[in-house]
Amino acid sequence: MSEPSSLPVAFGDVLAAADRLRGVAVETPLLESDALNAMVGGRLLLKAEPLQRTGSFKFRGAYNAISVLRPPAVVAYSSGNHAQGVALAARLLGIPATIVMPDDAPRMKLEGTRALGAEVVTYDRWRESREAIGEAIAARTGAVLIRPYDDPLVIAGQGTLGLEMAEQAARRGAKLDAALVCSSGGGLVAGCAVALIHCLPGIAVYCVEPAGFDDHARSLAAGTRLANEPGAASFCDALLAPTPGEVTFPINRRLLQGGLVVTDAEVAEAIRLAFRHLKLVVEPGGAVALAAALSGKLDTQGRTIGVVLSGGNVDAALFARILAEAS
Amino acid sequence: MSEPSSLPVAFGDVLAAADRLRGVAVETPLLESDALNAMVGGRLLLKAEPLQRTGSFKFRGAYNAISVLRPPAVVAYSSGNHAQGVALAARLLGIPATIVMPDDAPRMKLEGTRALGAEVVTYDRWRESREAIGEAIAARTGAVLIRPYDDPLVIAGQGTLGLEMAEQAARRGAKLDAALVCSSGGGLVAGCAVALIHCLPGIAVYCVEPAGFDDHARSLAAGTRLANEPGAASFCDALLAPTPGEVTFPINRRLLQGGLVVTDAEVAEAIRLAFRHLKLVVEPGGAVALAAALSGKLDTQGRTIGVVLSGGNVDAALFARILAEAS
Repeated sequence: MSEPSSLPVAFGDVLAAADRLRGVAVETPLLESDALNAMVGGRLLLKAEPLQRTGSFKFRGAYNAISVLRPPAVVAYSSGNHAQGVALAARLLGIPATIVMPDDAPRMKLEGTRALGAEVVTYDRWRESREAIGEAIAARTGAVLIRPYDDPLVIAGQGTLGLEMAEQAARRGAKLDAALVCSSGGGLVAGCAVALIHCLPGIAVYCVEPAGFDDHARSLAAGTRLANEPGAASFCDALLAPTPGEVTFPINRRLLQGGLVVTDAEVAEAIRLAFRHLKLVVEPGGAVALAAALSGKLDTQGRTIGVVLSGGNVDAALFARILAEAS
Repeated sequence: MSEPSSLPVAFGDVLAAADRLRGVAVETPLLESDALNAMVGGRLLLKAEPLQRTGSFKFRGAYNAISVLRPPAVVAYSSGNHAQGVALAARLLGIPATIVMPDDAPRMKLEGTRALGAEVVTYDRWRESREAIGEAIAARTGAVLIRPYDDPLVIAGQGTLGLEMAEQAARRGAKLDAALVCSSGGGLVAGCAVALIHCLPGIAVYCVEPAGFDDHARSLAAGTRLANEPGAASFCDALLAPTPGEVTFPINRRLLQGGLVVTDAEVAEAIRLAFRHLKLVVEPGGAVALAAALSGKLDTQGRTIGVVLSGGNVDAALFARILAEAS
């Protein structure tokens, strides 16, 4: 699949982001486990983004956007990972940050954001619009809104993860047949698809979502943006966006092979296997791509699959509960 | 401190081991956390060896020894990490392995060793001698005994961890003032000290042990090998050797600055902080060096300290219990 120049993010944007992030973001390792490979009958190369600064990929896009814009102040809305990414990026660049977070966000994410020096404003996830609150603060204070995914600079920053995956796989002589990337608003998978398909034209890139929040899978099949039914629940707190992004969807519609969907039980099992075989702490939203690979959602037999483990910000009590469950 | 040529392991032995391990062992990342740095008022560079094949550093020494010796069969005794390291190394080299393990070893380590194709023979940790059992099997079957630490090839293999730490720190422009390495029989710290002191002549290398198993700390102070008092207990199952090794102690006595001692409670807190800030699963024995740094056992203010996180093979039930404890 070729990369059309009409998309809002081009490969050159990802390269420019990689230059800005060099020496600032961590080049996270691409892990491999003999045990997981044996389980899937193929080869899984796992991008360990819990080892990124702030514990998730979100720092990449936030830093790229803020370092280009250099505004007097920033505001962001986020369930927690974008919050921490924006907070750290702003602090490194000497810019004050206000973050709008749901009051039921994981405690670790709320505390982590405050610990990074940002002001946190909480809201009710089911009754208030985070977008409206964020835009009101921006209008009142003059701060620039750093969107979690509908921003070409943010998408290009997240794309550096896909670029690193392609480079790291090539360095070890592996040829990726497919890549699995989690999706909420679709910024990470859009950026990664731009980078991966440029570097590896034959690769099939899939987004992965939790059941009940499969708006991308259905929208990609329908060719138009569809919303999730209200009332669904998932413990993948990072992946609850109601609909594909306006900026991200045209990219994903053009570049993605399709969308895969996993249950919370499949995600919990993936978290346990990452604990056991990778020694890595992966949060629920960060484990959906691994869950798809391990639960047979695509053919892994004899193939080499890039899998994004996108974050590790999970409260200790929930992680302990997941470990304690029989698999 | 200069490296005396009379020691049983020289820097060239570590370099030779690094050549043999290239492309076979993982060059594990050197992690850093803004939050942990802030806690100690200095800079901690953490060698993430839970990400090594088999989940601990032991694969390095085992593979180095077996790849040089190429015996018809191998036997080893181990509480679990050396067991898995020998089992995988033997399998990769096409050599049958028998492993003698205590019957109370963590289930994950027993199962992991069997899953790697080794034959496992269990014994009673408090009533039988693993050394005697291992040597009897070797005498009966002709297998070569791969000792867990008292073997220059094993020590040189473990030293590749210290070599990587020195190289990785230099690549990011950091100058290590000190290094903290866990110690049971003393093979890892001996090999690391040989490599680190060669690369960084001014560095102070300390071994770290759990309270009740501080035979190295006392032996280093006394200048002679002392044994632990019987009856002590610690959840650091990997660090329960009764006395410093015969081959390792002359190295450690010459090269180490001294020994630090941490309590199980300090280790549990280090495990929780590694979960929270590093997203890494660290087993109790693997967390003693971090525990020493975080509990003020040496001066960290304004200094850069290399810290070895040596393994992550901990049962899910124990890890969940540690997370659930109030800190």
